[in-house]
Amino acid sequence: MSARAGIVVTGTEVLTGRVQDRNGPWLADRLLELGVDLAHITLCGDRPADIDAQLRFLAGQDLDLIITSGGLGPTADDMTVERVARFCGRELVLDTALEARINDIVTGLMARFPGVDAAAVRDANRKQALVPAGATVLDPVGTAPGVVVPGTPEVGPTIVVLPGPPRELQPMWSAAVATDAVRAAIAGRTEFRQETVRMFGLPESGLADTLRDAERDVTGFDRLEITTCLRRGELEIVTRFEPQDAAAYSELLAVLRDRHGREIYSEDGSSVDEQVAGLLTGRRLAVAESCTAGLLTARLTDRPGSSAYVAGGVAAYSNGAKTELLGVASGLIERFGAVSEPVAEAMAAGALQRFGADTAVAITGIAGPGGGTEDKPVGTVCFTVALAEDGSSARMLTRTSVLPGGRSDVRERSTTVAMHMLRRALLGEG
Amino acid sequence: MSARAGIVVTGTEVLTGRVQDRNGPWLADRLLELGVDLAHITLCGDRPADIDAQLRFLAGQDLDLIITSGGLGPTADDMTVERVARFCGRELVLDTALEARINDIVTGLMARFPGVDAAAVRDANRKQALVPAGATVLDPVGTAPGVVVPGTPEVGPTIVVLPGPPRELQPMWSAAVATDAVRAAIAGRTEFRQETVRMFGLPESGLADTLRDAERDVTGFDRLEITTCLRRGELEIVTRFEPQDAAAYSELLAVLRDRHGREIYSEDGSSVDEQVAGLLTGRRLAVAESCTAGLLTARLTDRPGSSAYVAGGVAAYSNGAKTELLGVASGLIERFGAVSEPVAEAMAAGALQRFGADTAVAITGIAGPGGGTEDKPVGTVCFTVALAEDGSSARMLTRTSVLPGGRSDVRERSTTVAMHMLRRALLGEG
Repeated sequence: MSARAGIVVTGTEVLTGRVQDRNGPWLADRLLELGVDLAHITLCGDRPADIDAQLRFLAGQDLDLIITSGGLGPTADDMTVERVARFCGRELVLDTALEARINDIVTGLMARFPGVDAAAVRDANRKQALVPAGATVLDPVGTAPGVVVPGTPEVGPTIVVLPGPPRELQPMWSAAVATDAVRAAIAGRTEFRQETVRMFGLPESGLADTLRDAERDVTGFDRLEITTCLRRGELEIVTRFEPQDAAAYSELLAVLRDRHGREIYSEDGSSVDEQVAGLLTGRRLAVAESCTAGLLTARLTDRPGSSAYVAGGVAAYSNGAKTELLGVASGLIERFGAVSEPVAEAMAAGALQRFGADTAVAITGIAGPGGGTEDKPVGTVCFTVALAEDGSSARMLTRTSVLPGGRSDVRERSTTVAMHMLRRALLGEG
Repeated sequence: MSARAGIVVTGTEVLTGRVQDRNGPWLADRLLELGVDLAHITLCGDRPADIDAQLRFLAGQDLDLIITSGGLGPTADDMTVERVARFCGRELVLDTALEARINDIVTGLMARFPGVDAAAVRDANRKQALVPAGATVLDPVGTAPGVVVPGTPEVGPTIVVLPGPPRELQPMWSAAVATDAVRAAIAGRTEFRQETVRMFGLPESGLADTLRDAERDVTGFDRLEITTCLRRGELEIVTRFEPQDAAAYSELLAVLRDRHGREIYSEDGSSVDEQVAGLLTGRRLAVAESCTAGLLTARLTDRPGSSAYVAGGVAAYSNGAKTELLGVASGLIERFGAVSEPVAEAMAAGALQRFGADTAVAITGIAGPGGGTEDKPVGTVCFTVALAEDGSSARMLTRTSVLPGGRSDVRERSTTVAMHMLRRALLGEG
């Protein structure tokens, strides 16, 4: 029997759907990795009675761990630490060292807002230095510290209190897991292994078919917990199993490789972005985008260190820009249309030349909602990858796809198609 | 006092975050429109004990209405109707007319899958025609009917049971709202108004300070439900109140305007992206980006119809690209550095000229994690907005900010700063 956990997500903006909760799913993944069984997620607004009710509910569900997110800011609607302290019957104590640390952080931030009364701001932030007696403080990543309140037989589970912004919550979760209180709470867990296979270019129903055959042929298939997920146009297969069932997973993997060798691009959890970054080492990439208008360049430069291999990109949204900035002959656009393979190739050639690059990607397509025709419906996108070898003329790989979905889907999916074309071209797989 | 509701979202794939729940937020919006106060959303997996626990919890929270989503399919892990019937102490009764309707739907679907045993499928689907005694059936949109179980003094709230797929749930919700049981349950509702104010350039703690003063000075402040949220570098203040408290909201708004007139950019819920799109009508915009490398261009072209005013952009990641594609003098980069106000201005001027545009934005900065110096730490970003008026030389607005956070934060936040600079420049506010 593994340890059991519940998550309380607070915040009226999350409850009402104005802000999408990203912490529940992220924490769910972390608990899965730890082999902790997640039983409940509850969401409520910034109201004391509703927060109290959810804590009471979860404490009665035979859980080892409760994690809360949100409500740690300086405003009056931030009240999670106070409610948790009250629930656990612990007094709030001012942690003066913590107060000094928050003051330092806030004073630094205030330098950018000269009109604001720094003393009043420090008062507002003092509240964030109040800690339940006996709790462990988690150092703030923003200005808000978290706390871990150890479980007791009377109150129930250990409670981890984390801030709402994901970029603060995520690093603080690692600190929380390292505390004695959390380690003790989840000590009864079963160890699990989790493996991820990623594919591109296979429909979900094709995989379903393969998995049905695997169910018949793989010994111990029923002890593998397999979940499949279609994400960003890629298929992800996550398998969770106890270490003694590793042989069953190996058999499953062999079936997948046998049937879908070309579509599998990752067996170690690596993303296509990571793989492309590695393959671009020592190269110099330029991007030419029309319908995606910067999205692929932004994706490629999202990685630290990408300036070593990304020279830049042109978002040539108008035909004039294609001609002026990428040297696409206007006659080519007139003859074949802006969304055409010859124009994609000319854009890639222009990007190579203008940026002095040896590798280029070009995308031109119709993202919609308008602009589609019978010949070229919305979702039609032409891609070219160009690789210049040893000063000779470039090798060009070009394809056209019709991508499903609305405007953002087509734009987003186009970047994924381009990443996979780039990966295969750089691997010499065409 | 308005009617109160809770939502139970079932499904292991939703609880574990593999599939994002879209029903909770959608139902939250519908409840808001009806003036029904949403108190709790709870998520659990396909386990009878956990579903029962959530129903028990919500029934004890003084609610008028519980809505469930998911768990209405034919397989063994679909059990919501059965759990709800048991919870309400009602027998499950086979609705033979409903069974016939489901059979018709399923027979039609099976035509596309010739290999499947239709009789077995029909048996599996019979389960979906079992209805709690006294409940109202909601016609299926897919194959799964929903039910409305009227509330009773013993059990508590009225329970609406809906399927998981949003495209089935959404039309069935309208049918649910039209039933006598739901109308009676929410009859006690109060109408609410909701107003949104958005600000840029104020820290959250500065707002906390103002709200504390407003609490003292605004008559009826305690009847305003105020939530504040920091998002994408902006502050959002959402206030919910009953119509008779509109005067209190007006007083609050007057205080906010008085203290933060310059920071408030929206009082009608509009986003900066919507406002900038409106202000760009009839203009021609070009973007020059270094550290954000396409992110701002992608954000501006996210809106349908943006090709009417966006000419394009250059992601000039390398110094060579700044010179070659934007005409930035290499001497300028050597003298002031690539991240400097003179280079930002030269990038904007180059974008105007190369794209034949009348409006340009340029961003050059250090997103990190490397590249920072003592003078220019990570997060230092220079912005220029250039407006060309009547063929004369362009008006330039330039500023430098040091933005907090990691690489993605700095990049993302830079696009928000640029949007606000663009907005103010186009409004002639400098």
